[in-house]
Amino acid sequence: MRPQPECVACILRRAVFEAHLVDPSKAMDVVKGVLATLCEKFDENKPSIKVWTEVHRKVYDILGTEDPYRKVKRKSNDIAIEMFPLALEYYEKSEDKLRAAEILSIAGNILDFGVSIKNPEDFQEKFQKILEEGIYHDDTDLLKKHLRGHVVYITDNCGEIVFDKLLIREIRKYVDKITLLVRGKPILSDATLEDVYYVGLDKEVDEIKTTGIFAVGIDMDIVPEEIRSLLSSADLIIAKGMGNYESLSETDLRPIAYLLHTKCDPVAREIGVPRDVNVVKFYG
Amino acid sequence: MRPQPECVACILRRAVFEAHLVDPSKAMDVVKGVLATLCEKFDENKPSIKVWTEVHRKVYDILGTEDPYRKVKRKSNDIAIEMFPLALEYYEKSEDKLRAAEILSIAGNILDFGVSIKNPEDFQEKFQKILEEGIYHDDTDLLKKHLRGHVVYITDNCGEIVFDKLLIREIRKYVDKITLLVRGKPILSDATLEDVYYVGLDKEVDEIKTTGIFAVGIDMDIVPEEIRSLLSSADLIIAKGMGNYESLSETDLRPIAYLLHTKCDPVAREIGVPRDVNVVKFYG
Repeated sequence: MRPQPECVACILRRAVFEAHLVDPSKAMDVVKGVLATLCEKFDENKPSIKVWTEVHRKVYDILGTEDPYRKVKRKSNDIAIEMFPLALEYYEKSEDKLRAAEILSIAGNILDFGVSIKNPEDFQEKFQKILEEGIYHDDTDLLKKHLRGHVVYITDNCGEIVFDKLLIREIRKYVDKITLLVRGKPILSDATLEDVYYVGLDKEVDEIKTTGIFAVGIDMDIVPEEIRSLLSSADLIIAKGMGNYESLSETDLRPIAYLLHTKCDPVAREIGVPRDVNVVKFYG
Repeated sequence: MRPQPECVACILRRAVFEAHLVDPSKAMDVVKGVLATLCEKFDENKPSIKVWTEVHRKVYDILGTEDPYRKVKRKSNDIAIEMFPLALEYYEKSEDKLRAAEILSIAGNILDFGVSIKNPEDFQEKFQKILEEGIYHDDTDLLKKHLRGHVVYITDNCGEIVFDKLLIREIRKYVDKITLLVRGKPILSDATLEDVYYVGLDKEVDEIKTTGIFAVGIDMDIVPEEIRSLLSSADLIIAKGMGNYESLSETDLRPIAYLLHTKCDPVAREIGVPRDVNVVKFYG
């Protein structure tokens, strides 16, 4: 995916948010640093994640941190763990378990644990809403046809990874091997290896790999050869969230299924669905 | 007021909005133009309106228009005119007519006629909400003490100017002369002379002046000497909305009363109130 006009304001807002997580007094330096980076590197004809990665690198440098989201991520994981029994109950009561697990893992992508979700009551209310919304674009039947052999499951946010457990358990019924692929370095609120172990997601998969790099999504130009082969040889890739979509939509990796909530207009437009809907989008 | 970290994302979002009003296919050129302008001109140590004015000039140039908001402004005025009898009824039923007129004119600042307000039902619902919120910071008693002699009333948005009528009628009870000061050139959704005549606000005042210039708010460094004298000699200045606050908070013009809704964090912080509240702030 290429940068869209709306993205520039969004990345600046995100940069200010990151400054506030670490040291609000540095917010102006962060904004000026991001402006300079954007003026130098923004190019609507290059994959969007290239410049977003540069922007976050600049912000983290100015803030003098390797991970502005450290506390937020821990809190998200903790609250999601607390809510997990409710999700499990829903999953177990559902007849269509694959779709139930999909929507639970998309719900994990939407709900900001620790922000809008602070206790079980908040969770139940918002969660009910998401279930009622359902999957707006639903390629589950296509995805199901490709559930065999070796699946690579690419994670997204902290908190969300707790809910990924159920989808991974469901996928396990159909496939021989599941490899979890996580970010190599902390970026945004995305899960790293540390988070996978913290929430116990390691126990649900056969293998865990990290990209080894600092990047938004999966930057195929710079991941190690091992990761490129892993993705090229997979019988199916399941990619969670918008960062993975933004990066992998640039590649011809197939078959691939994106599970996400369209949190912004540019991604919604690219996929061809409205904003704020739940999507299971398959490319074969 | 000086630019704050959050302002940069906001101005970029606004620029994209302006492109969409005129020609969405130019949105990317607009974003790149704004980035270049910001990189060259953004300076947190200069009054914020200086750079915002430059940004809007650049956007209007790229879009090849003198007024991207022309249609939106007309629609706002038309819908506000349609809603006016409901406001008048509220004003006439109120015991504290000055505060009633103030809140009506602040409501005019909040309500996006033609966007969130499309018909009388929408208006009544949102309007009721605003009345219930009341005036969070209320210097009406101080303002009232200075209601004498010659008042200069500085307008803000289209639509809003229809509701300003009631406040101007109320002020008239106390003062000798009311001069209306409007933008000299179209900028944002702000009212110009054309709008004042269109909604009949000219009939409510003794005199109308325009700044003669293209600028966000009132840029005292570049308005004609006549406008500087007008403002310096006024017994009271009443300034509506955030653009006027952003610009005039840089000056020592006194006494001055700002009537606005805090639509963003930076302005709310500067005034020392929460975001999304109604404010009558007096500086004597």
